[in-house]
Amino acid sequence: MSSGTSDSRYAARGASATKDEVHRAIAGLDKGLFPSAFCKVLPDVLGNDPDFCNLIHADGAGTKSSLAYLYWKETGLTDVWKGIARDAVVMNLDDLCCAGATGPYLLSSTIGRNKHRIPGEVIEAIIQGTEEYTEELRQWGVDLRCGGGETADLGDLIQTVVVDSTMTARMRRDAVISNHRIQPGDVIVGFASFGTCAYEFVDNSGIGSNGLTSARHDLLHHDYLHRYPESVDASVDSSLQYSGQFHLNESLLEVLGSSLGLAPHASRDGLDFGRWLLSPTRTYAPLISSLLRDIGTEGMHGMVHCSGGGQTKVLHFVKNLEVIKDDCFEIPPLFALIQKITETSWQEMYRVFNMGHRLELYLPESLVASALDWGKHYGIAAKVVGRVGQASNNLTSLQIKGPEGILQYNA
Amino acid sequence: MSSGTSDSRYAARGASATKDEVHRAIAGLDKGLFPSAFCKVLPDVLGNDPDFCNLIHADGAGTKSSLAYLYWKETGLTDVWKGIARDAVVMNLDDLCCAGATGPYLLSSTIGRNKHRIPGEVIEAIIQGTEEYTEELRQWGVDLRCGGGETADLGDLIQTVVVDSTMTARMRRDAVISNHRIQPGDVIVGFASFGTCAYEFVDNSGIGSNGLTSARHDLLHHDYLHRYPESVDASVDSSLQYSGQFHLNESLLEVLGSSLGLAPHASRDGLDFGRWLLSPTRTYAPLISSLLRDIGTEGMHGMVHCSGGGQTKVLHFVKNLEVIKDDCFEIPPLFALIQKITETSWQEMYRVFNMGHRLELYLPESLVASALDWGKHYGIAAKVVGRVGQASNNLTSLQIKGPEGILQYNA
Repeated sequence: MSSGTSDSRYAARGASATKDEVHRAIAGLDKGLFPSAFCKVLPDVLGNDPDFCNLIHADGAGTKSSLAYLYWKETGLTDVWKGIARDAVVMNLDDLCCAGATGPYLLSSTIGRNKHRIPGEVIEAIIQGTEEYTEELRQWGVDLRCGGGETADLGDLIQTVVVDSTMTARMRRDAVISNHRIQPGDVIVGFASFGTCAYEFVDNSGIGSNGLTSARHDLLHHDYLHRYPESVDASVDSSLQYSGQFHLNESLLEVLGSSLGLAPHASRDGLDFGRWLLSPTRTYAPLISSLLRDIGTEGMHGMVHCSGGGQTKVLHFVKNLEVIKDDCFEIPPLFALIQKITETSWQEMYRVFNMGHRLELYLPESLVASALDWGKHYGIAAKVVGRVGQASNNLTSLQIKGPEGILQYNA
Repeated sequence: MSSGTSDSRYAARGASATKDEVHRAIAGLDKGLFPSAFCKVLPDVLGNDPDFCNLIHADGAGTKSSLAYLYWKETGLTDVWKGIARDAVVMNLDDLCCAGATGPYLLSSTIGRNKHRIPGEVIEAIIQGTEEYTEELRQWGVDLRCGGGETADLGDLIQTVVVDSTMTARMRRDAVISNHRIQPGDVIVGFASFGTCAYEFVDNSGIGSNGLTSARHDLLHHDYLHRYPESVDASVDSSLQYSGQFHLNESLLEVLGSSLGLAPHASRDGLDFGRWLLSPTRTYAPLISSLLRDIGTEGMHGMVHCSGGGQTKVLHFVKNLEVIKDDCFEIPPLFALIQKITETSWQEMYRVFNMGHRLELYLPESLVASALDWGKHYGIAAKVVGRVGQASNNLTSLQIKGPEGILQYNA
């Protein structure tokens, strides 16, 4: 099933988990007040108070909107676009939380569409979905307000639709979490990206909004290329386009039963495969807010949102340390399925996907119980997934225990 | 040369000057503290001070990046991408200024690209161009700071590259300019979008970042369709794609001489047609800042950035008034050329393009001299272009004196 190595497949599709080029492009830029914080932190440009600082951050739903497009075309259901709106928000929200910015926030959405393919009802679902989600978040203690947004008709640039968000926060400088405080002896607590948490109602596949280009093409049937050529990059070899075996409307229980031998589970009952792949990205914002209010910022040595770069993301934020993740979550079914079908190396799987936890905290042992308690409070499975050790020979390194042994990554 | 009416051509290309669908989609949303301000104004979410307010605003360079793509492919010059970075900034900056928000500002850029076509050097030019521009703006008294941005590889969604920006401002509520104060008796002062102002070095065509889909297809030669099919929407009829006669590398002096009989002008010397079409959008931010500092906000009854919607933009902001623009700037060569070639109705031309001024101020007669003086200070041609009258029969209306008589627009 694999066309070349998985690495080259990923590159040939024009996605990049590592973004080396982008990192080179921004290498010379000012890194802000806390270069090791998860987001860039600026002085208080907006309030001119030396005790405060500002963050402005951008991200989006990425190619998950191409998957939503297929699902919407097949079913006519516009509510999947509300999920895309959530994805775009959460990709910002959880990044900001990992810098310690727990709100209030300002939010602005930017939607670019091909007007011939994306009608007003889709734009309306995305805009309404964003509004509804901010209301829901406020009920969970996350204060996010929508300012002005932009919807642009860009048919010469965009084949279907791009959904991005930008968020701004202002906070006390002494509340910033900067990952330079991650240190030998820290325990790593991971929080599940999958399952069903207190503010979800059906099974979340856990994929979030990263690795969707790979997942979509590796899992979905070649049929979709012929039916929706507008959902792919025409310059990519067609053998890499929708090279999988599944259809969006297949029963999730049947797919997981026949492919992985999984028993039925009530939270997946009635879900189809497409809807499951489209699971809106879970936010950890309520959990992070509660935990920081509880334990304060002093003991929170680091927070990493395992988004682009998956389980290797932490390598952007540490130096001269050995990060060891030797007890990660059992691999959730979606990632197990992708690996089984594509025979992608585990080395690559952990670099592209979150593989079970999208949030990891770096804490002293004494605070672990509180972290696990707040996980329980929000119905998010949590566990100690590893620890931080001294680097040998000043080498920054990451070890992950995969299903077939130790995976080694260097910074 | 025209395929159907110009209106239907515009729609067939999937651009929309009026954005009716988008306005319907956001109709039910909260309009903020000052519903008639040029941008949405929120309470001070970030500072919690009742005397202050917040604005977050998004916009982008639109399909102008498709033009930059052609020019870059033809010439190999990456600096055109720095112009695109400016366009994305100015489209936000000037909108915010029209609400009275003159900085400081936070800025975040979102770049979506097709990695197969847009290499790292282009991303670098866009990011560096943004940084350089903020430095330049600070020298002109406009305080804009870059926070975190996002560059995403979205080959399944984007054919070339999309460049968007989002900006946040915090300001005193009593400094907000709300267009509900536009009133009978106000004089309208327009500021030129074209020519060469104090912070420009060559002739600016004046097009800004609106109407570029039309301008590009109406002016450029059909050759470009075959050479760069990735620069157009494949679902649009090919007769509408690059249906013009010009090439990017033609001498601007020759084009304007042969098409419009214009005499050579030193500021256009050595410019080619493509570079002129790509003129970075002029910002009015230094002028607006200086003028508001000089005359205060009380007498500034309204400010309109004539971006999408061109000269009819004001109709979104006034009620029960008759807006009369009977002495606009002589039509700049680029718009004259587009009209001559496409035979687009003047009615439509003024709705798509700014036609000479991209900023208009609504002031009492007593403040007009100050406004004109600040125009002179920044080398921006300025003149009284019209006035505001009582509406007859409670009808909100706009009259523009075009080259062939009065054009009537209703809200």
